Amino acid sequence: MAQSRQSRRARVVIVGCGFGGLFAVRALKSTPADVLVVDRNNYHLFQPLLYQVASAALSPADIARPIRSILRDQHNARVMLGEVDGIDLNERWVSAAGARVPYDYLVLAPGAVDNYFGHDEWREYAPGMKEVEEAILIRSRLLRSFEAAELEADPAEHDAHLTFIIVGAGPTGVELAGAIKELAVDVVARDFRVTDTRKARVILIEAGPRLLPALHADSSARALAQLRALGVEVRLGASVTRVFAGGVEAGGERLGSYNVIWAAGVRASPLGAALGVPLGPAGRVRVLPDCSIPAHPEVFVIGDAAYLVDPVTAQPVPGVSQGALQMGRYVAGVIDAAVRGAPSPRAQGFHYRDRGSMATVGKSRAVVELGRLHFGGLAAWLAWMVLHVTVLIGFRNRLAVLSSWIYSYVFFRRGSRLITGLRPAAILRPIAPATSDAAAASAAAVPPGRDG
Amino acid sequence: MAQSRQSRRARVVIVGCGFGGLFAVRALKSTPADVLVVDRNNYHLFQPLLYQVASAALSPADIARPIRSILRDQHNARVMLGEVDGIDLNERWVSAAGARVPYDYLVLAPGAVDNYFGHDEWREYAPGMKEVEEAILIRSRLLRSFEAAELEADPAEHDAHLTFIIVGAGPTGVELAGAIKELAVDVVARDFRVTDTRKARVILIEAGPRLLPALHADSSARALAQLRALGVEVRLGASVTRVFAGGVEAGGERLGSYNVIWAAGVRASPLGAALGVPLGPAGRVRVLPDCSIPAHPEVFVIGDAAYLVDPVTAQPVPGVSQGALQMGRYVAGVIDAAVRGAPSPRAQGFHYRDRGSMATVGKSRAVVELGRLHFGGLAAWLAWMVLHVTVLIGFRNRLAVLSSWIYSYVFFRRGSRLITGLRPAAILRPIAPATSDAAAASAAAVPPGRDG
Repeated sequence: MAQSRQSRRARVVIVGCGFGGLFAVRALKSTPADVLVVDRNNYHLFQPLLYQVASAALSPADIARPIRSILRDQHNARVMLGEVDGIDLNERWVSAAGARVPYDYLVLAPGAVDNYFGHDEWREYAPGMKEVEEAILIRSRLLRSFEAAELEADPAEHDAHLTFIIVGAGPTGVELAGAIKELAVDVVARDFRVTDTRKARVILIEAGPRLLPALHADSSARALAQLRALGVEVRLGASVTRVFAGGVEAGGERLGSYNVIWAAGVRASPLGAALGVPLGPAGRVRVLPDCSIPAHPEVFVIGDAAYLVDPVTAQPVPGVSQGALQMGRYVAGVIDAAVRGAPSPRAQGFHYRDRGSMATVGKSRAVVELGRLHFGGLAAWLAWMVLHVTVLIGFRNRLAVLSSWIYSYVFFRRGSRLITGLRPAAILRPIAPATSDAAAASAAAVPPGRDG
Repeated sequence: MAQSRQSRRARVVIVGCGFGGLFAVRALKSTPADVLVVDRNNYHLFQPLLYQVASAALSPADIARPIRSILRDQHNARVMLGEVDGIDLNERWVSAAGARVPYDYLVLAPGAVDNYFGHDEWREYAPGMKEVEEAILIRSRLLRSFEAAELEADPAEHDAHLTFIIVGAGPTGVELAGAIKELAVDVVARDFRVTDTRKARVILIEAGPRLLPALHADSSARALAQLRALGVEVRLGASVTRVFAGGVEAGGERLGSYNVIWAAGVRASPLGAALGVPLGPAGRVRVLPDCSIPAHPEVFVIGDAAYLVDPVTAQPVPGVSQGALQMGRYVAGVIDAAVRGAPSPRAQGFHYRDRGSMATVGKSRAVVELGRLHFGGLAAWLAWMVLHVTVLIGFRNRLAVLSSWIYSYVFFRRGSRLITGLRPAAILRPIAPATSDAAAASAAAVPPGRDG
């Protein structure tokens, strides 16, 4: 802190504190620059475990940690709560929370939003699962469905309450399908007197020919077998053509359900499009090999919002946490070198290192790919557990998560089975006028949408 | 389950699963009757610790447990999720979730709601803290205030963001004031770079001459000294005459604050008034000595919704959890005797046994009254901790609560500091049409109110 420089310190602004933004700011720890992290949430969310909130195994606080806490001891970093609603690339500022924030280097890591492929009206009936609030909503809906089934005399309605449809068989869809089936069969079955919740149907619908398309075919087959052993119905090659208040149409079939969850894909945050630079697939910003945008070497886009074909593998960097955090570390290195006037890693460009992939299907069921080593079953599940608990180190939540999980898995109970937020009290408005989020929330009577 | 009786089994309906309803249903465990518990939430809430959710120390799931889980092994009990919206005392049914539910014995334990003493318009600016959703709202507002203060240049606005006003100095008000002061001083102080959150003002306003009026004067004095040592400003004998968007007027003074919390008192749930029987203070139903209502020995009102002067002490039974749970056990005994044709405890009437009182002020600060033994300080705080952790036995949450608390108190960190639910995504509507709650939630655009 005591060092003084002749020129003023460089100002780095990082927008978004997901994996990309978080690893960027942490990698700038020793850089002689003032770093500001802007996020519309006050917490970093460990998104890979969000499905465990939706399926009532964990509380939101178990998988989220205040950004300020994480950066408490990083003295060159500050945090600002707010949504970025404007960027001026020429004057070099972003606007957020009613203020203009100038930068010398800008890292955009705004992440992705659910992609309804032109059918945003489906969101109302089939919420996605990118945010804590959505996971809580899905949890409340799931749990209410069992309650509604218990009271429902009409057989078709009863079945619709006990049918859970997940659209999209990427990791989120697979994990959610397994978790919901376990919830119905193992967790709540003995709680109900009339309804046999073990008869709940969980249907996983995938337009493509196999699930987990980002993994290899043997892992897809392994996960399929595990899901089917669990009792999940998997429909491959079935496109959803309609979502409505009481179900979906998929593959020419009409399926009644009051619980449709959207996990069919994501597109980049609309913030990228606001830059006015060429976009790639799913609205991702086509970045240069060093993750910067054309004509602005001081502006970087990373993570799910960026589209970059890796020069080594000739494959696009995948939209997964590893991709985001590796990009975050890389651009931090570029910025650090620029600030110090040191040799830059810019020239060789970003290269994605595949650390392996895994997805869990349920208790003692998972698939893991580590290089050429592909395996499933209990060993895979233990590997998945160890990795996720390890990654949560630093989250104070490790102990709580571990004890919740041990409890859940040993006793087949889940401790977070609360139906909340569906009553009017939940929309009491915030009154503090200081930030733009507050303004957005006071307009909460308009139809919901997370992109605005 | 195999026993069969000549006459059909008696039907007991219990409305509300707070302390009164929960202890009533559990005490009916061996009664040859079909017991139905109706609640608008799917969980029993350990309300004495709700202030810890509001002050970011615990997650909702730590202090709430699904009613179905609690009653899983009680085979004569069923659970219904729904809000009672009609009672017919002559035909003996209640209506809930669109259905008529007949009863032979009815126990009403609907609890209390915040009392704004004719100023319900204050609720918007000064939420109470009776429900999980409200506690989450208060938590989000508190945490946003620090964020807003960090960004605010105007000194008056800055100070208003850093001023926290609690109206009412009963246990909830005292505990919340202490917890908020600790949050500002010990938990978040190092997270902020500009704002010195330790300068946050916490003002506890009480219209009466002393705090904790239900306790003895020496405990009031002890708690007052502890709160002041913690830095809480206590205004006694100051009536709040106005609450508005930016503060309150109290005792002739205008205090700027964006965080006003209402803990000034409760009134009985409006369900009691729907019975058409005489009401006592705060809308409580004047019950007979056996907790039944006039002319209907089969209908009981217990807990915060009941007004009963104890024949032994000539004092009204206090609106505390002990009062509710003792009444719950008592009416269960009356019903059990009636069902079995056994000698009834009706004749001697209900008698409240004072098990002592306690309130916590902060880390290692509390006051305890056990009969004539009154004490404060660390010993009182340890007694409070032991009691509350013990009572949480049965909640799976004991381990999680304990580890959260140890963590919080040892490291002065709090793990649940999430700002959630203030963005539009949080009001995505439930689509399952089965219950009246769902209908209430789809009308979520109307001004908030919990009583309707």
